[in-house]
Amino acid sequence: MQIKLTIEYAGTDYSGWQLQSGQDSLQARIEAALERIFSTLVRVRASGRTDAGVHARGQVAAFTLPRPFDAAELQRALNAILPNDIVILNAEAVDDSFDPRRHAIARVYEYRVLTQPWRSAFEHRYAWLIREPLDIDRMNDAARFFIGEHDFAAFRTLGTEVRSTVRRVHTSEWQREMAHLTYRVEATSFLRHMVRTMVATMVEVGRGKLEPGLVAELLQRRERSMAPAAAPPQGLFLVEVRY
Amino acid sequence: MQIKLTIEYAGTDYSGWQLQSGQDSLQARIEAALERIFSTLVRVRASGRTDAGVHARGQVAAFTLPRPFDAAELQRALNAILPNDIVILNAEAVDDSFDPRRHAIARVYEYRVLTQPWRSAFEHRYAWLIREPLDIDRMNDAARFFIGEHDFAAFRTLGTEVRSTVRRVHTSEWQREMAHLTYRVEATSFLRHMVRTMVATMVEVGRGKLEPGLVAELLQRRERSMAPAAAPPQGLFLVEVRY
Repeated sequence: MQIKLTIEYAGTDYSGWQLQSGQDSLQARIEAALERIFSTLVRVRASGRTDAGVHARGQVAAFTLPRPFDAAELQRALNAILPNDIVILNAEAVDDSFDPRRHAIARVYEYRVLTQPWRSAFEHRYAWLIREPLDIDRMNDAARFFIGEHDFAAFRTLGTEVRSTVRRVHTSEWQREMAHLTYRVEATSFLRHMVRTMVATMVEVGRGKLEPGLVAELLQRRERSMAPAAAPPQGLFLVEVRY
Repeated sequence: MQIKLTIEYAGTDYSGWQLQSGQDSLQARIEAALERIFSTLVRVRASGRTDAGVHARGQVAAFTLPRPFDAAELQRALNAILPNDIVILNAEAVDDSFDPRRHAIARVYEYRVLTQPWRSAFEHRYAWLIREPLDIDRMNDAARFFIGEHDFAAFRTLGTEVRSTVRRVHTSEWQREMAHLTYRVEATSFLRHMVRTMVATMVEVGRGKLEPGLVAELLQRRERSMAPAAAPPQGLFLVEVRY
């Protein structure tokens, strides 16, 4: 039997989800907590990696139970061991066949931009500060071009091997609340740095430096060098993984 | 000439406002930044101390300019030196007679309580987690007893010498927004740990463990030992100082 975990974390103080030797990763923290409970190495697999500084409100991961253990009790035990910035929101028993990465049918990300001329002592870990005003209507004009099935080769990190760079985007929309602009995007899956490169492109559109139609052109021409550098990690939240 | 600073800070990683040898205080950080700009020691005085872990959205402090310097330029220079969790929101020239502590006519604090059964990875630095539901109507019944001029001897840290424990409270009210309860209190000035002890008392009222009328009794009987221990610092924000 496997346990499926739904996990919330502030990524600021971690090297990212993925286990890396000598680094303080989220996977390492969760596996260490499980090892304390079960006195044996427990390997955890997630729906996908998140980079250093990226947060999650609903990352999903799973592991095989080394011995019978009540899911609710396990949640309490993990939360008692894990640091304040990692929280197990849910733990439930699932079938051995469950694969958190392959069985996911959609992922939802949000990216938070704070638009004000001065820094924020409370938001610097959780938003990208843009000191100039942004035109959200232009940004939404750009955002709509992403909806549908497209080749996102222009919106990813070079050097990562993937079978295909085609992805299907279901939702792509900016919303404003006071000085905060939040971008919500849902897709079958994402390429590495895809959301952050999309966001950086749309922010340039909002600044008036690029035209919304450039997004359509980038999707067609598939040239990474035409898109701006990825937006910084601290604004990005993995909100939900759907199965 | 003096400069009056309005300062925002996340107090989590600091020992409090006040300079203490061997400790990383907010005053020490701001004085170090000023020393870098002016190449001489600059002593900064605040409207009042905040304890370790307590935040500010509008602390006010002042210092005498060692040599002529434009206020707006000084703000930019300070913000370029100060860490991400300390922000100068405003800097303005004021008269030499300005005293940030004595001339303040009112201080506004807010205290944030998060009511949900599980921890929050994002709120643990900025709210007190109460896992049981709280009855906000009872808490407001208790809060109203604080309004007016009272002797707050029961709501302070023992051992601190003060001339008088009488204070005048103008505003004292809880508001709910989803799982967050926020207490807003305005008074001429506050005793040490006063807001946090008031909050702890009202949370016990909200839990149903104490009656709202106990507040009136505590104000009359002035016995510190009758009130609960102070609420933790991370929920407390110095919001505004009025002159």
